[in-house]
Amino acid sequence: MISGEKKCVYCKIKRGELPTNLIYYDDKCFVILDIYPSQKGHMLVISNDHYDNFLVSSDQLSMHMIKVARKFSRKAKQKLKATAIKLVVNIGKDAGQLIAHTHIHIIPHYYPITEYSIQPNPQISKAEAEKILKLMSEVSNVHAFQNHNLDT
Amino acid sequence: MISGEKKCVYCKIKRGELPTNLIYYDDKCFVILDIYPSQKGHMLVISNDHYDNFLVSSDQLSMHMIKVARKFSRKAKQKLKATAIKLVVNIGKDAGQLIAHTHIHIIPHYYPITEYSIQPNPQISKAEAEKILKLMSEVSNVHAFQNHNLDT
Repeated sequence: MISGEKKCVYCKIKRGELPTNLIYYDDKCFVILDIYPSQKGHMLVISNDHYDNFLVSSDQLSMHMIKVARKFSRKAKQKLKATAIKLVVNIGKDAGQLIAHTHIHIIPHYYPITEYSIQPNPQISKAEAEKILKLMSEVSNVHAFQNHNLDT
Repeated sequence: MISGEKKCVYCKIKRGELPTNLIYYDDKCFVILDIYPSQKGHMLVISNDHYDNFLVSSDQLSMHMIKVARKFSRKAKQKLKATAIKLVVNIGKDAGQLIAHTHIHIIPHYYPITEYSIQPNPQISKAEAEKILKLMSEVSNVHAFQNHNLDT
């Protein structure tokens, strides 16, 4: 086990040890709603395997995750009526990376512009999460994710 | 010609009609220093061809640009002693995209943390640009870029 994996929040989510709002998964990554959204529909694309950050994972994985981020950015524009999207990858704590596990932020923006906040944000409500999941999710049975062995 | 290409700042840079601090180029994209850096070594990965934003360019091009962004992120850590990196793609003006041409921001961060500023920043000085170019550039002759037809 790579150092930190046991206690890593995203690894725990992947193993089903923590609840999440899952939007998508495949054999390389998964997409969830950020629990502290800076904007409505703030999503995270997270690698299945543990890597400390976006620079230590492979080119292949990073490029796949970007492909997924683009897909869900488009979907946020279509389904959430976002007028713009900000993709952010924080690499290292001095750039604001809070969880040391490769992930990409998809942050929908809406007219009129609200400045992107780097302050902590209120936790997403269950109702709001469900509303967005209904619009965004491609997972018909979220529980399947937590029982599915993504390593196979 | 795609709408906007004639007046597009990045297209003008690519055509050699505006000066720039070029760090790298290949057949799909090029890397320059941001003229209004939010941090030391703030770079832009820009597509050679004009697309209004990162969502309308192809998966293939986007993934290639991310590969290049990763490469120069690593280099910023090695050469500029950045302690962290923030990659940002603004898609649409409501997310802060100022130039409607596909590009990725590579923003080095340094300990101690300076909050990422969304305010306009002072223009980079020639001396500072040269210093960073010397450390970062893989282009031995920058003028070659402006004379080189990247479309071939």
